Amino acid sequence: MTSSAGTAVGPYDPGAYVGLRFYAAVRCFQEGTDTPRDYLERCLSRITELEPTVRAWVILNEAGAREQADASTRRYRRGEPLSPIDGMPIGVKDVLETKDMPTEYGCAAYAGNFPKRDNAAVWALRQAGAVLIGKTVTTELAGPEPGPTTNPFNPEHTPGGSSSGSSAAVGASMVPAAISTQSGGSLMRPASYCGNWGLKPSRGAINRGERQTASTTAHGVVAACPEDMWQVAIEIARRAGGDPGWPALRGPSVPPPARKPLTLGVMETEGWGRLDERSREAFERVVLQIESCGVTVLRRCDEPLLERFEQTLTGATELTNLILAREHLWAFRDLAEAHPDRISARSKHFFIDAAERLGAAGYERALQDREVVQAAFASLGKVLDAVVSPTSTGSAPERFGSGTEDATTRWPTGDPVFNTPSSLLGAPAVNVPLMAVGGLPFGLQVMGQAGTDARTVAFARWLGEAIAPVIV
Amino acid sequence: MTSSAGTAVGPYDPGAYVGLRFYAAVRCFQEGTDTPRDYLERCLSRITELEPTVRAWVILNEAGAREQADASTRRYRRGEPLSPIDGMPIGVKDVLETKDMPTEYGCAAYAGNFPKRDNAAVWALRQAGAVLIGKTVTTELAGPEPGPTTNPFNPEHTPGGSSSGSSAAVGASMVPAAISTQSGGSLMRPASYCGNWGLKPSRGAINRGERQTASTTAHGVVAACPEDMWQVAIEIARRAGGDPGWPALRGPSVPPPARKPLTLGVMETEGWGRLDERSREAFERVVLQIESCGVTVLRRCDEPLLERFEQTLTGATELTNLILAREHLWAFRDLAEAHPDRISARSKHFFIDAAERLGAAGYERALQDREVVQAAFASLGKVLDAVVSPTSTGSAPERFGSGTEDATTRWPTGDPVFNTPSSLLGAPAVNVPLMAVGGLPFGLQVMGQAGTDARTVAFARWLGEAIAPVIV
Repeated sequence: MTSSAGTAVGPYDPGAYVGLRFYAAVRCFQEGTDTPRDYLERCLSRITELEPTVRAWVILNEAGAREQADASTRRYRRGEPLSPIDGMPIGVKDVLETKDMPTEYGCAAYAGNFPKRDNAAVWALRQAGAVLIGKTVTTELAGPEPGPTTNPFNPEHTPGGSSSGSSAAVGASMVPAAISTQSGGSLMRPASYCGNWGLKPSRGAINRGERQTASTTAHGVVAACPEDMWQVAIEIARRAGGDPGWPALRGPSVPPPARKPLTLGVMETEGWGRLDERSREAFERVVLQIESCGVTVLRRCDEPLLERFEQTLTGATELTNLILAREHLWAFRDLAEAHPDRISARSKHFFIDAAERLGAAGYERALQDREVVQAAFASLGKVLDAVVSPTSTGSAPERFGSGTEDATTRWPTGDPVFNTPSSLLGAPAVNVPLMAVGGLPFGLQVMGQAGTDARTVAFARWLGEAIAPVIV
Repeated sequence: MTSSAGTAVGPYDPGAYVGLRFYAAVRCFQEGTDTPRDYLERCLSRITELEPTVRAWVILNEAGAREQADASTRRYRRGEPLSPIDGMPIGVKDVLETKDMPTEYGCAAYAGNFPKRDNAAVWALRQAGAVLIGKTVTTELAGPEPGPTTNPFNPEHTPGGSSSGSSAAVGASMVPAAISTQSGGSLMRPASYCGNWGLKPSRGAINRGERQTASTTAHGVVAACPEDMWQVAIEIARRAGGDPGWPALRGPSVPPPARKPLTLGVMETEGWGRLDERSREAFERVVLQIESCGVTVLRRCDEPLLERFEQTLTGATELTNLILAREHLWAFRDLAEAHPDRISARSKHFFIDAAERLGAAGYERALQDREVVQAAFASLGKVLDAVVSPTSTGSAPERFGSGTEDATTRWPTGDPVFNTPSSLLGAPAVNVPLMAVGGLPFGLQVMGQAGTDARTVAFARWLGEAIAPVIV
């Protein structure tokens, strides 16, 4: 609740907080009252001011970004911007390859790794004229071992992970948007903790390029507003397509407008019992407001299909992590053999050891268990427009809570229990920054059926507009 | 029909030809009458002798291979080989990354590319004790533009592509086995032209590591005998698993024994009319032999489900190529923008231009068309054990046939029409080197339902044992 440790943003008020909104600046670029270069300079100043505390960036490419922004400025001057995100300064999680910056995966074994090629999404962003300003901090190998980033609203707290730097940079108004990834809860949870709008798209909807590492992983976008969030996602998908064999993100070329749902369901997961009292109160106050707008909100006791789905979610986080660990096994073993002292004990414990215990037959069983969860959720499509839940078990926990030095502590960057369902299901999920608990952001999650990304964003936008922010 | 141009192997006789059989050497290693190092030296001598004509290799790592072979020799001496393929010299198609050799994709834009990391399959081969002897020639970017490799049985003819070097090296008895890949017809056709046993596994059955580039692509194995072919495939799959989200290659840890099928179907594809008379005669003589063994062989006129499947195959090669081209679009555009003069006009024409004409909506329609073909083939599982067909439209065509200098000539390394169905279906396919036409190999293809790799190999082995080689 204090920013005494440095120049952090200070306590979060979801009603008053306004981050960087790029789409609003585009008209000024067109009218000549602002330029992408000036926009970039303001971002760089903000980074200079806050980065010593927030530590969101692995590397900044100021010179390259200025060149890109100048080129964008010239395009606007000619009236020929490449896209609605031409000139947008954007951060890229340091697990995506970039031809002009190293890619180190938050891992000492990759120190200096510089393949000099672009990930598919990075290539698409360049094609759309975005300004690639730098690489954002990831936890080690996008796993549980945290990086140095702090929560922009209180440096004593975690920003969440694994997409720590992307969410913190957006929360701190250093950039209007950033690319995150999620395999378990790596996009949604940091978005919840840092007050971002966040979109974790449907499975395969955004081409992951060289990074097709796990069957649950998705590239996604965090931003300070839903307009920028959608625009970045659709501009990437229109250029790079979806993963091989998957349709690209479906939806309009402009942000889908708010749409009021008829029926929502509350998804409890195993995390329900882990919500602290204040967080549950904040969430219930949101639900009451939704109902007072005339939207039917079903609970698990109201609808047998929802109860059935909840039952299949028992163990979903562990299931997600086993699938992930097994899919990473060969690569992690290769890395650990080459660099035994440059990977944390925590990563070895939760990736390699768990995967070896699982075995090949266990992995096949896990894939079958996932199909059961997917079928149960698909059946809900008949009765619900979407499900809502807290995006996390509360606001961000302290960074150096008890036991995080122990390699067997599972979640130093927070509990992903509300996020793993969308990863397991390949379903789109959106974080709506609607609540504050203890001066820190706490998000509302909307999750739709796979392939309904635009509709899910439209419901999320309605929630963002219709529901008054809740402070507890 | 002549080897006058150099020291090629000479005319092919499928009854007399014996390539390198590694599994037979293992007993000698165990008894101490042979060693992996001596085995390797014989391979290297053979390469020295034939490589000036065959040109199967991009790079050889003799020093590294000798070290690996010596380590293997010591393991056998201790009685502790790592696997049944410990000590096997093996070639790897130059589209898979290798930490000790460059990876150049047969493309000038990748000259000197050396990421110093192993593909999943390469890592698994090392874990199993195989000796990574070198990288084999691929056509440019595994596409239509040919490389320098010649057919080992007649240097005036193509070895097929894109896995040109892998098939030629095995056909020339330089190595007992090699890793190939197939997205359209890149493993099976060269196997047919070079007299290899070849296994293109089910979709996802062998982890492609960083190379998850297209939804039709599979890593596979070519070898001089079915025993080595299976053993290499299963040793990789047991260590590296399948692609993320897919079960690994199913089957026994030793080569599945021959199994006589009850009912086979002949798959004609659009290639039937392109078979020359001698090739069709050779194939029909094989079919007559199969029937005389008491196996029912159904034709499309005999079985409505087979006729229906054939109808869905109309345009299958074009469909495969459109899917492939679109899935490669961003990466090829990126490469072509960075190195406009270091990619052939043919690759640009058939990848980039075709994909841009298709568009995103066209790609989604193509995925739906593929599902129709897959459903039609799945329904055949009820009535047939497997389908058989020629593996190619004949034996290998001449290397510099008329028109290959024209960038719009589609298939300088031969027509993939009999191979694209297995790519499109994600179905396992096996080449059985049973026939010779004009002194060159001509293969029989066996294709099973997805996931039935071991059974398909067992049927192929039965054909290899029960059917007398045919020379036309």
